Amino acid sequence: MKIHSIRAEILTIGAELLKGSTLNTNAQYLGRKLTALGFFVHRQTACPDTCDAIADGLRQALIRARLVILTGGLGPTPDDLTRQSVAEYFGVPLVFSKSQYLRIKRIYAERGRRVPSSVRIEAMFPQNSVPLINRFGVALGFYIPHGEALVVVLPGVPDELVRMFESGVGGMIQKFFPDLEPGYRFQVNMAGISEPEVMRRLGKDFFDDPCEFGIYPYPGEVAVHIGARKRSTFLRLKRKTRARLTDVIYGWGTAGLSEVVGDLLLRKKRTLAVAESCTGGFLAAELTKVPGCSRYFEGSLTAYQNRLKTSLLGVSPRVLADKGAVSAEVARAMADGVRKLMGSDYGVGVTGIAGPGGGSVRKPVGTVFIAVTSPRKCTVHRAYFRGDRRQIQTRSVKKTLEMLWRVLR
Amino acid sequence: MKIHSIRAEILTIGAELLKGSTLNTNAQYLGRKLTALGFFVHRQTACPDTCDAIADGLRQALIRARLVILTGGLGPTPDDLTRQSVAEYFGVPLVFSKSQYLRIKRIYAERGRRVPSSVRIEAMFPQNSVPLINRFGVALGFYIPHGEALVVVLPGVPDELVRMFESGVGGMIQKFFPDLEPGYRFQVNMAGISEPEVMRRLGKDFFDDPCEFGIYPYPGEVAVHIGARKRSTFLRLKRKTRARLTDVIYGWGTAGLSEVVGDLLLRKKRTLAVAESCTGGFLAAELTKVPGCSRYFEGSLTAYQNRLKTSLLGVSPRVLADKGAVSAEVARAMADGVRKLMGSDYGVGVTGIAGPGGGSVRKPVGTVFIAVTSPRKCTVHRAYFRGDRRQIQTRSVKKTLEMLWRVLR
Repeated sequence: MKIHSIRAEILTIGAELLKGSTLNTNAQYLGRKLTALGFFVHRQTACPDTCDAIADGLRQALIRARLVILTGGLGPTPDDLTRQSVAEYFGVPLVFSKSQYLRIKRIYAERGRRVPSSVRIEAMFPQNSVPLINRFGVALGFYIPHGEALVVVLPGVPDELVRMFESGVGGMIQKFFPDLEPGYRFQVNMAGISEPEVMRRLGKDFFDDPCEFGIYPYPGEVAVHIGARKRSTFLRLKRKTRARLTDVIYGWGTAGLSEVVGDLLLRKKRTLAVAESCTGGFLAAELTKVPGCSRYFEGSLTAYQNRLKTSLLGVSPRVLADKGAVSAEVARAMADGVRKLMGSDYGVGVTGIAGPGGGSVRKPVGTVFIAVTSPRKCTVHRAYFRGDRRQIQTRSVKKTLEMLWRVLR
Repeated sequence: MKIHSIRAEILTIGAELLKGSTLNTNAQYLGRKLTALGFFVHRQTACPDTCDAIADGLRQALIRARLVILTGGLGPTPDDLTRQSVAEYFGVPLVFSKSQYLRIKRIYAERGRRVPSSVRIEAMFPQNSVPLINRFGVALGFYIPHGEALVVVLPGVPDELVRMFESGVGGMIQKFFPDLEPGYRFQVNMAGISEPEVMRRLGKDFFDDPCEFGIYPYPGEVAVHIGARKRSTFLRLKRKTRARLTDVIYGWGTAGLSEVVGDLLLRKKRTLAVAESCTGGFLAAELTKVPGCSRYFEGSLTAYQNRLKTSLLGVSPRVLADKGAVSAEVARAMADGVRKLMGSDYGVGVTGIAGPGGGSVRKPVGTVFIAVTSPRKCTVHRAYFRGDRRQIQTRSVKKTLEMLWRVLR
């Protein structure tokens, strides 16, 4: 079942995408956003930075789709040809925006740099287009209404693209297509469960109702997206999902585990401090991504060397020698130690072997001990994660956040 | 100038790519591999799983390119339509491979599972194709020589795709195109310079030599990729690049700033500890991504609250009150403090306002002070970064790594 009617295409421009030097996260981001708005994303094409390829891509996309989003190739260097190619395709000249140029000059001035003559091009846009001010970078975006269709051109720098989309471009697109039917959708996020297990618990009868269903595994998490055309169906599916998966659902919508944990701490007026070893700062980084985290996050200590575990966290040298740095006892002592050191209500200790070296038969690479401690009790978990160094670090952080969520909810 | 002569296209199939539920890592992997083999990867297209879209994609790709790789849609579910679509496109029936079916049955038996009737399709391939045994999964791949062109169809599961490519498919492709010329290529990575400034310093005469040139900005960094057909040209371009940009080049190849910094510490037999505030663990996480970092990284302290800056890092309460937590003096005291606390050779202190709240007229959101201290001297830098919380954190981390690199090299 497709609940979408209007087709959209994404054209990402740049040799770096085709050569594989850059992972195309823009295509994923735009695919998600446009699907959520109610579009049927029908093609995504990566083109090299040549006028022929860009114009050809645009021509073909406009045959198939009513919305075409181009990204990339708006910079100041000679291989940035998107604005020229789009202007050529529509047979219009590029025009100069003085106000945009003054804005660029201001940005350079703020950074204390000379304005190179090459950036003049970043203030140019096709005559038939409407400029989209990029408050998050230098290059201007723009859009071109073309009969029933809409062409939108955005910078390729992922951060700028995302900020621009969220702060106005998404809304502009919705206004252009008032007949868009987003239907009813929800996203539900779960931790500590596998994809097949989610399917088993939802059951076959879950799919008696016509719905658009997607299940997506992430490290340590599973997300399910469900869409329905009718509100009544949507509500019934949501009810069923909640009833069948309640113990593993940590949130609905886009808030991640660290935001949910932060929210719980805030509501309970409790504070947190963490001590890390194998995750080397990743856990703290994940927790401090959340704006306003200073209201509940005291701080973190990454004690990479054993002597710091002893001198700063008070882990007994005897326990370290007897049980090893990677052990339940050390995880617990780290959690207790950082709680005392930083004066927080909750403490976390994570110690493990992220690899590639350091593993043994009894404690192979991927062995991780996680302790969560509060004034009243301490929970320690031994985990074994597969994967490379980065994957093991990520999964350890996710598991820790899951444990915090379970303790706090 | 393109140093490649043979064009290749990548066709990735699946609604999950278009909806953005899955990040298209296959396109990146194949782009890298084909470029290294000497192909000019000219288009990458993501198609939905319909016969029309797949056949249309294949038809258009074969007009433009001599090598077309399709991935995905080889599974056993009703939305896996790639083999049927390819057979239909070439007007041939699907044939059944008994040996492949027996292999699939064996895999299921090993896992102790019943063979569902639906998997029979995974032993089918177009009559005009040569099957590619997939030793790493269930679905069969295949290839079809088509005049001067070659069509290769591989499973979409990233692990299976990668292993199949490395263990035979890449070699088969090279044999099919004996006239492939891989050419000569290098990548150079720079920090603390803007894209236009790189272009200005390379100069117009740099491009007198025929070369393939790409310049890519990342937060706080710029990468340049250069390729040439002849070895002598390649060497000349490399020499010129080095001469004109030597003060900003931190590395050649794929190693990032944190690896380069780690390598310098290791070679100098020096150790590092960091104290973070606004970056909240990101700097430590970046440094500990590198395998073997325990040989030079002592640890990190994220002192989110001022009282921890005082109690653990020894920042004087008077300085905090007079100058504010976001000041050159506090950054310096944090760097000195963590050096003493953890007994390292080098210390880093980062304090700033990542936002969205906490800014003022004199110190707006994005103001960051970074101090790098060694036994001999201390460097403090005041930076102002634009963007949201995450961007400011990322740019602060990059700037810190750049400062460390400058101090160490």
